[in-house]
Amino acid sequence: MNQSFTSLCGIRYPIVQAGMAGGPATPELAAAVSNAGGLGTLGAGYMAPNDVKAAIKSIKEMTAKPFAVNLFLPEEFTFDRDQTEKMEATLEGFKERLGMEKSSRFTGWTSHFEDQLDVVMEEKVPVISFTFNAPTKEIIDRLKQEGVVTIATATTVEEAVRLEAVGIDAISAQGSEAGGHRGTFLGSEEQALIGSMTLIPLIADAVSIPVLAAGGIMDARGMAAALALGASAVQLGTAFLTAEESGAHHLHKEAVLESKETDMRLTKAFSGKMARGITNIFMEEMTAVDNLPPYPIQNALTSGLRKAAASRGEKGYMSLWAGQGAPLAKRRPAKQVVQSLIEDYNRIADGLVKL
Amino acid sequence: MNQSFTSLCGIRYPIVQAGMAGGPATPELAAAVSNAGGLGTLGAGYMAPNDVKAAIKSIKEMTAKPFAVNLFLPEEFTFDRDQTEKMEATLEGFKERLGMEKSSRFTGWTSHFEDQLDVVMEEKVPVISFTFNAPTKEIIDRLKQEGVVTIATATTVEEAVRLEAVGIDAISAQGSEAGGHRGTFLGSEEQALIGSMTLIPLIADAVSIPVLAAGGIMDARGMAAALALGASAVQLGTAFLTAEESGAHHLHKEAVLESKETDMRLTKAFSGKMARGITNIFMEEMTAVDNLPPYPIQNALTSGLRKAAASRGEKGYMSLWAGQGAPLAKRRPAKQVVQSLIEDYNRIADGLVKL
Repeated sequence: MNQSFTSLCGIRYPIVQAGMAGGPATPELAAAVSNAGGLGTLGAGYMAPNDVKAAIKSIKEMTAKPFAVNLFLPEEFTFDRDQTEKMEATLEGFKERLGMEKSSRFTGWTSHFEDQLDVVMEEKVPVISFTFNAPTKEIIDRLKQEGVVTIATATTVEEAVRLEAVGIDAISAQGSEAGGHRGTFLGSEEQALIGSMTLIPLIADAVSIPVLAAGGIMDARGMAAALALGASAVQLGTAFLTAEESGAHHLHKEAVLESKETDMRLTKAFSGKMARGITNIFMEEMTAVDNLPPYPIQNALTSGLRKAAASRGEKGYMSLWAGQGAPLAKRRPAKQVVQSLIEDYNRIADGLVKL
Repeated sequence: MNQSFTSLCGIRYPIVQAGMAGGPATPELAAAVSNAGGLGTLGAGYMAPNDVKAAIKSIKEMTAKPFAVNLFLPEEFTFDRDQTEKMEATLEGFKERLGMEKSSRFTGWTSHFEDQLDVVMEEKVPVISFTFNAPTKEIIDRLKQEGVVTIATATTVEEAVRLEAVGIDAISAQGSEAGGHRGTFLGSEEQALIGSMTLIPLIADAVSIPVLAAGGIMDARGMAAALALGASAVQLGTAFLTAEESGAHHLHKEAVLESKETDMRLTKAFSGKMARGITNIFMEEMTAVDNLPPYPIQNALTSGLRKAAASRGEKGYMSLWAGQGAPLAKRRPAKQVVQSLIEDYNRIADGLVKL
């Protein structure tokens, strides 16, 4: 199956850089990964449509190779004014600690998805990856007409089967090890925490399209493991987060590089949606707070706090997304991440003793 | 590293059958796995010393090959009379549903560990595996003098390093996917849920003794993955639980064979210690009950209920331990589990395309 994903996307190596939204997955990182023979990805989930356009143009200036843009599909949510106001009051306490001025009240949230998608299609981006839902048949048809390759995230067999049925070209199978947001869109987030060791073969058995293994893969050992389990390619987030070209905050990179495997925890505190990151003060104190507004409301409510924390260098209030494999991360150019994956993979594949 | 574990134990294949206590890991299963070239294990954790002796003699009648006995190391716990009585009252409600008579009050719990260990050493069992703690230096010295090979379970890097330091011969690295009880003995059980995809390379990097990969491995794909990640051998529980020679209750086997990957959940309801099993009524209703007595008290308190449920065929109140890979389980002889692991592994190892 390796052949199929690489030829589908027109790339040399079955290596995808995850679309880490909110900073890490910059045009520079995407271009470096694509230039090294993998599939770089712009993390456009939170970007305004004009910024997406500018970023795509910037990638095109740095590489002639195929690359992807990652978008967040909108999902149903319920806005509860009372719940939101209580959370605003809770968050004021954290904001005071950071010396922030009182924020203006939350007035609503609008998805940029349709406009982001228009930009990505205008710019003829060759690959689009989706997270947080299954695209509609309408979207898929439009993308197929333009020859765009589509990838979407599944965290269970049921989700993978659904995505194949709507016409997605490849499944990104997100194991429980993964850093950042869970892509679960059917059923309970808690019950959809399946380790890569079982999620990959289960999804590979259930669908006939290529499967990307995402979650816990940090080096060539993980890459060889994922391909042995039935994946056609690997998707790495945390391993690229500490790359030189990554736009992650320097404190975020340092926290990943210094982490132990037991430091990462799942939390809904930052966004209302379950995500894995390095435990900090905000995550710990928020475990005592219930009735969190859902994503994307909670995400919007904490946005100012996280930005202020980042600019003040207060990592206790930043979302330090990282997968369980974070202790294996290294600081180096993205090109080197790709090259050592390939070199070490070939050595490992050769070294698997016959029994 | 494969060579080292197989030659250490004197076995042909780097395949270990997990010591599933409480029924599945019978003498028949252990002997069948050892006869097939793997390392069979008697799950002796809950057995009375005399029963351990009889079971070992029975294994010796069925195989001349090396086998292992798995023992639970005692651990510190606090007995709280009030907490225990409240739980007894809660459990009476469940017992009434099953038409059980009112139980006698809990009077205390004694570890059989020392006597179990004496029996296992008298019987000159070649391999002992430990769970739930690190053996003392005294025990290790005694075992080393007799040439017994020792294995112990770690769920974090810190635990693996501790076990190597006390002189254990091989680490069983238990990924979060694993079924049954978590072996965590240092720090929080919740923070020690690391997927096999990252736990194996992290522990392999941290110790210089052989690492067994345990958690989520159901077939040759998982075995090839584990060896690529740096394991010297694989340890399979759920894959052997549905074997013909397994002593698991037929309803337990059927539940595993019919499961989806999202059916398994972590619970402390049955034993006071975190374990992964197929969600049922007892687990669901017990999520509303707090202040559970610790292991081994809660385990003793629910023991009668679980036995009665098993004999009445009420799977809603049985502990249906299973790993996340349960949907990949098959009903077949243990010999066939081992043989297909080897045959398929060789095909997969051959098939890993060079990049």
